[in-house]
Amino acid sequence: MKVAILGCGFIGGSLAAALRRRGLAASITGYDIDPQAAARGVALGLFDASAADAASAVPDADLVVLAAPVSSIATLFGQIAGEIGPDSVVTDVGSTKAGLIAAARSALGPAFERFVPAHPIAGGERPGLDAADAELFDGCTVVITAAPDTRADAVLRVEQMWRSCSARVTRMGAVEHDRILACVSHLPHVLAYALVAHIAGRPDSEQVLSLTGPGFRDFTRIAASGPELWRDIVLANREAVGRELHGLIALLQRVDAALVANDARALQDLFELASRTRRALGGRRNES
Amino acid sequence: MKVAILGCGFIGGSLAAALRRRGLAASITGYDIDPQAAARGVALGLFDASAADAASAVPDADLVVLAAPVSSIATLFGQIAGEIGPDSVVTDVGSTKAGLIAAARSALGPAFERFVPAHPIAGGERPGLDAADAELFDGCTVVITAAPDTRADAVLRVEQMWRSCSARVTRMGAVEHDRILACVSHLPHVLAYALVAHIAGRPDSEQVLSLTGPGFRDFTRIAASGPELWRDIVLANREAVGRELHGLIALLQRVDAALVANDARALQDLFELASRTRRALGGRRNES
Repeated sequence: MKVAILGCGFIGGSLAAALRRRGLAASITGYDIDPQAAARGVALGLFDASAADAASAVPDADLVVLAAPVSSIATLFGQIAGEIGPDSVVTDVGSTKAGLIAAARSALGPAFERFVPAHPIAGGERPGLDAADAELFDGCTVVITAAPDTRADAVLRVEQMWRSCSARVTRMGAVEHDRILACVSHLPHVLAYALVAHIAGRPDSEQVLSLTGPGFRDFTRIAASGPELWRDIVLANREAVGRELHGLIALLQRVDAALVANDARALQDLFELASRTRRALGGRRNES
Repeated sequence: MKVAILGCGFIGGSLAAALRRRGLAASITGYDIDPQAAARGVALGLFDASAADAASAVPDADLVVLAAPVSSIATLFGQIAGEIGPDSVVTDVGSTKAGLIAAARSALGPAFERFVPAHPIAGGERPGLDAADAELFDGCTVVITAAPDTRADAVLRVEQMWRSCSARVTRMGAVEHDRILACVSHLPHVLAYALVAHIAGRPDSEQVLSLTGPGFRDFTRIAASGPELWRDIVLANREAVGRELHGLIALLQRVDAALVANDARALQDLFELASRTRRALGGRRNES
């Protein structure tokens, strides 16, 4: 299987490394809007070759993986639309799906039925190809959000690739995916960014930050993620993120009322529900 | 130095282990409201002896460490007040300070000048003595919030103990400590509990939680912390926590407005400030 990876960042590089480790690709071509990134991938041994532009990376590939930020994937659809081979399959790794599917449908024309929208839920706060990790997808969940007219054999090819990389694959609708990810990924990023920005805006922020412990560092780790990347993810899913944000603000206002009323029972009920739920989820320090 | 540790949980046990490892205590006596906890500490080799009640643990001790939850420390002051030796020093490990100092002043009488309020900022989400970690305080910051009438030699004895356990010691006022910890510890716990409770309250929570990745697990790790413990910490510092919560809700409402307006610039500015600040803080995965 010849693979083209368009977007040479942490996720694209880690996928190349995972495919390499298992000997799953006859060749891997990398393309990035930054030519140095693709060249770096070749130097690291992740790619066999780098392509000068997106269109030239595609014609020979059995599988084209769009691993760029969500806002760039829409552009890539337009650049590759005329170059996709008749038996080739296209997939992506974007964190939002409904908008990308609409963009793909409009840009890819008849090749849309061979586009398989996918989202590997893997930690991505470490930037760049040099952090590429062949084991990143071991045990991670990959959500496939095929459209009704996505070809079944194309879906199978992408699922097979992810399973070969030791990921678990699950299928759901794009709208449902976006609604769930708003809860478990996009809203947490908003909260982490907001808390750190809240502290950074204080005149005594340096002193405040000097007193942070391991709990704070875990809680705010995702706030180190690339701001442009997450700006675009959040905006691409802004209706669902907004709905979840409203729900959370309402809950925080209930906490505020409990603080004002010194209402230990209300706080305990909320904290107990959360603690029980979080403990059941597992993933202790250094185990996630 | 003879040490009495009142409260045999993760922090008290870890302090005993740290003192043991360095041979800093001639003897360590443990007391807990749960007699099995103190006996377990003896069985684990953390304590030389267990005391049947708080008062009997204290008379022989050169240093008395109150390592119980904040809501229990106030009770302990009353139980030990008449038993503190004339040259003994009392200290605590509570996460809030102003309220505890007021309780100590009222309960300890003339011995108050030998009470040194202290707060080791160490991760504490792992419950119980069996998780005791002799290296927990290596490099951690311990804040000493002495009152104007706290004796200087008592402060030095407590600082020396923490430095011997490889902690860094810093001094500040109790009100300032409580204000800062509201930002970097109490509010993050409230946010983590609220987010997990928000998700747990959904009819599809099981499916939603099945799609969480490592970022979510890091972000919500502190929501596994003991709910009663944190209910009491948050209530003990409820004015400062309320102020920080108001500030954060206002910021989240600005995020909501930016989502509604599709205002990429506003989101990026906020996310960039946070990302830059968090990256400067360091503490990558597995390093905190």
